[in-house]
Amino acid sequence: MTETYIVGLDYGTSSARGVLLDAATGEQIGSHMHAYRHDVMTRSLPDGTPLPRAWALQNAADYLEAAQEILSKLGRGRNIASIGLGFSASSPMPARQDGTALSELYPGEPHAYVKLWKHHAAQPYADEINRRGGSFLRNFGGKLSGEWLLPKAAQIADEAPHIWDATDRFIESGDWLVWQLTGTEARSLGFAAYKAQYSAMDGYPHGIVPGLTDKLAEPHRIGSAAGSLSEGWRQLTGISGNAVVAVAVIDSHVVLPAAGAVSNGCLVGALGTSAAYLLLNERFQPLPPGIEGVAKDGSIRDLWCYEAGQAGFGDTLGWFVNAFPRGADSAESFRHYNREAAQLEPGANHLVALDWWNGNRVPLADSSLSGLLVGLTTNTTAVDIYRALIESLCFGARAIVDLFESGGLAINRVVLTSGLAQNNPFLVQTMADVLGREVEVPDIAHATAVGAAIHGAVAAGLVAGFVAGSAKFGAQRFERFQPNPNFAVIHAEQYGQYRELSADETILHSMRVLNGLKDSLSDPACEHLALSGQEH
Amino acid sequence: MTETYIVGLDYGTSSARGVLLDAATGEQIGSHMHAYRHDVMTRSLPDGTPLPRAWALQNAADYLEAAQEILSKLGRGRNIASIGLGFSASSPMPARQDGTALSELYPGEPHAYVKLWKHHAAQPYADEINRRGGSFLRNFGGKLSGEWLLPKAAQIADEAPHIWDATDRFIESGDWLVWQLTGTEARSLGFAAYKAQYSAMDGYPHGIVPGLTDKLAEPHRIGSAAGSLSEGWRQLTGISGNAVVAVAVIDSHVVLPAAGAVSNGCLVGALGTSAAYLLLNERFQPLPPGIEGVAKDGSIRDLWCYEAGQAGFGDTLGWFVNAFPRGADSAESFRHYNREAAQLEPGANHLVALDWWNGNRVPLADSSLSGLLVGLTTNTTAVDIYRALIESLCFGARAIVDLFESGGLAINRVVLTSGLAQNNPFLVQTMADVLGREVEVPDIAHATAVGAAIHGAVAAGLVAGFVAGSAKFGAQRFERFQPNPNFAVIHAEQYGQYRELSADETILHSMRVLNGLKDSLSDPACEHLALSGQEH
Repeated sequence: MTETYIVGLDYGTSSARGVLLDAATGEQIGSHMHAYRHDVMTRSLPDGTPLPRAWALQNAADYLEAAQEILSKLGRGRNIASIGLGFSASSPMPARQDGTALSELYPGEPHAYVKLWKHHAAQPYADEINRRGGSFLRNFGGKLSGEWLLPKAAQIADEAPHIWDATDRFIESGDWLVWQLTGTEARSLGFAAYKAQYSAMDGYPHGIVPGLTDKLAEPHRIGSAAGSLSEGWRQLTGISGNAVVAVAVIDSHVVLPAAGAVSNGCLVGALGTSAAYLLLNERFQPLPPGIEGVAKDGSIRDLWCYEAGQAGFGDTLGWFVNAFPRGADSAESFRHYNREAAQLEPGANHLVALDWWNGNRVPLADSSLSGLLVGLTTNTTAVDIYRALIESLCFGARAIVDLFESGGLAINRVVLTSGLAQNNPFLVQTMADVLGREVEVPDIAHATAVGAAIHGAVAAGLVAGFVAGSAKFGAQRFERFQPNPNFAVIHAEQYGQYRELSADETILHSMRVLNGLKDSLSDPACEHLALSGQEH
Repeated sequence: MTETYIVGLDYGTSSARGVLLDAATGEQIGSHMHAYRHDVMTRSLPDGTPLPRAWALQNAADYLEAAQEILSKLGRGRNIASIGLGFSASSPMPARQDGTALSELYPGEPHAYVKLWKHHAAQPYADEINRRGGSFLRNFGGKLSGEWLLPKAAQIADEAPHIWDATDRFIESGDWLVWQLTGTEARSLGFAAYKAQYSAMDGYPHGIVPGLTDKLAEPHRIGSAAGSLSEGWRQLTGISGNAVVAVAVIDSHVVLPAAGAVSNGCLVGALGTSAAYLLLNERFQPLPPGIEGVAKDGSIRDLWCYEAGQAGFGDTLGWFVNAFPRGADSAESFRHYNREAAQLEPGANHLVALDWWNGNRVPLADSSLSGLLVGLTTNTTAVDIYRALIESLCFGARAIVDLFESGGLAINRVVLTSGLAQNNPFLVQTMADVLGREVEVPDIAHATAVGAAIHGAVAAGLVAGFVAGSAKFGAQRFERFQPNPNFAVIHAEQYGQYRELSADETILHSMRVLNGLKDSLSDPACEHLALSGQEH
């Protein structure tokens, strides 16, 4: 009998990765990574068309190229039972009725491309939607982030009406890729609920952006089958077998079963370029103010999953070691900084930072905010600043934990995943110290892609559900970090500073002014945003 | 007939410099620099005794060593008509009745050494004196800086009573050096008025620190002769001639006649390690709140001189290029950063800094404050931060200019002096842009030492006064920088941000907590400061 395999795909910000697992034993057989040809486009389109400040686009064709290479490498000549897919979000794109990406038809038009999650030029539209308000914001902390789908749709409708008119489907890139692979448009409840404010009771919010709801489609619960790999893709990749393709999942959510996080009270922090925190709960509780979203069946079947996040995390540390290198490459710089920073006592740097280098997601949902450093003196060293950055990222995490608990959501376990959690024990130890809790790091390679593979296995019926899938394919061992009780008092004092500075209106105002988006808000083009009258 | 010369000495933070001028022609004949053997002691005494945080001491013996070397190099075998002396302040030290430095008698006792101007561990004592208040604060912005003489005296009296008991004279290091050179204790009105709150009407403030007034002496107007070089020093240095030694002058004040600044309405900014701003005025005006001090005959004879300053300036820029080097040495790093920063448009860095890396002198007189950076993003470059630092130093200068003008003190000319003004045209141009005024930089080498030489010439009667001395020995040419009118709007907006952040209580509180001096204030040893009851 032929061996059977399952595939998981993890589409991140700059590259995609696939893993191949043995469907019978759960063993990881192989993996392959492919960097996107055009990476993140912040300065110009492939044809050289320049982009304004705060834009971040991707080219949908790069996703197909990555899929073809990874699926061929892992699957050619193999019997593939299922394919699961995690994708960064919200990264929506305009497409025609037949699935053609508008960037194929309008290659010189910025608005025809994927607006990556960290495209921040839609923030004024989010601000305007938030100003108008509406009950659909109830489960989203009362305000939209500029990173989500609605403001990105509003930006196209306002700034490029001809593109908006040509858009039949406005779709998350992950859903679009599933469509391409299967020939079926089967949208994910994960994307819809967390990034487009869909609710089972009310559907998508109406009357926000003209024509938007006609360009969306009803979503499917995660763990469902979207279809199976199309004949064309089987020829392109040499894959055989059922090749059931699951509906796509937000990349930060798809990791849960791989990290063993499938039960009530488990908080998972996925520490990647940005950080996402997911808290599983059996019952619905009203959303604590500032927490981004909650949905059932959007992450793990039959559980409510509360979502929060930090807009910048690994990218902020990466920025630091690149701007102020201490070695031949960033890995060497990280080793240097981690070794030196671990020698410092907490508080010895006399610094506190606000970790908003990429804006603030929770609780302020404002991408026009920015990073702050206070306490700088002529005795401050680069290592002091690095440690302050690490600490501020942990304070940001603690603010989210406190917000969950203040809303009555119990946390009985903290699991940290992703490359940063696995490669930076100083960061994880500081997280345990700042949170004052045990922190677990699953010992598993390519956890996000493995989680995607588990989604595929559930969709194909290879396992009874997520608990079984997690036990079979997920992490088998966890590294545990205990908080240092000696650091509790000083971290509490620093955290108090962090919270006070976070709430200071003068600072927030200054960041917004400096961001320069205030100017574009007072621009006549933005005063008449193409939003429908408020009706919801 | 023998040629006659004059000598000027400039005692700075890390080294002393002397210049030799031809008394007849005014020509600079030579100069010599000598670095202090123990530089600034922040971590330990010469015998290894460790120092607490925020301490900054010097060894008085180093000053004598420098004097011997410089005077020998410049003066041996020469006919020296006069010696003038500028000295960093407030840098007081305890001495015996005969002039012996207590550090000679108690070499293992930190409180026996010179407390350098940037010794910041006396700040709690300044805070307590300020809390108690007193009319003597009237001409000093309503509060003392922790850098000045009274809090430094209070710290010794409180923390080392046996040293305070053994202290017959508590004296500025500049006055002490004049005493050593001449055998006469002739204190300077400059030090007394600006750094020890002496006034012609009230004398020194009474009843602040037990026994202090008995350890001080009546001061002399600047431009007076303290005496002439002693026999012992003539033998040590080989100097002949009258060698009249002028009373010492604050180093930032002594530069005025060398910079051609001897008349009403002239503002001189001495941009050194820190920055001092001196504004000359014919009449007395009440001190604008926040300005540090005013006195007559303490800087230039017959003029009132208003003083303000920035606690950090060149040291902040030096910190940056050392912490984040871009070249083999700091000169190369400065060239790199200046070249790149000059390419940026104002505001393009989306950053604003508060320039308080070394505390704030005006208007808050609080050395526990620290630097702040706001607006950091993952797009921020090291050059962006450098430019923000330069801009923040200029905003700090503008805040001082605005404070003078708000007090009715007219400014009709701005002159910038010191190495930074001469070597960093990008900084000077940014200053002109931010101030919106023409800025002049005198083309003269070793201006501070030349200014000291002019004081000596006035004291010895070689010239009729400061106007004549300035014309003969001071700068003959000035480089002029015009403001760029295109930058006025954006700099005004950035400056508005700077002012709002400067006044934000949350930020100020956070800086003070981070500094850690809040903790030492709640320490029992500091709650019972050895200050006398308020009576003045």
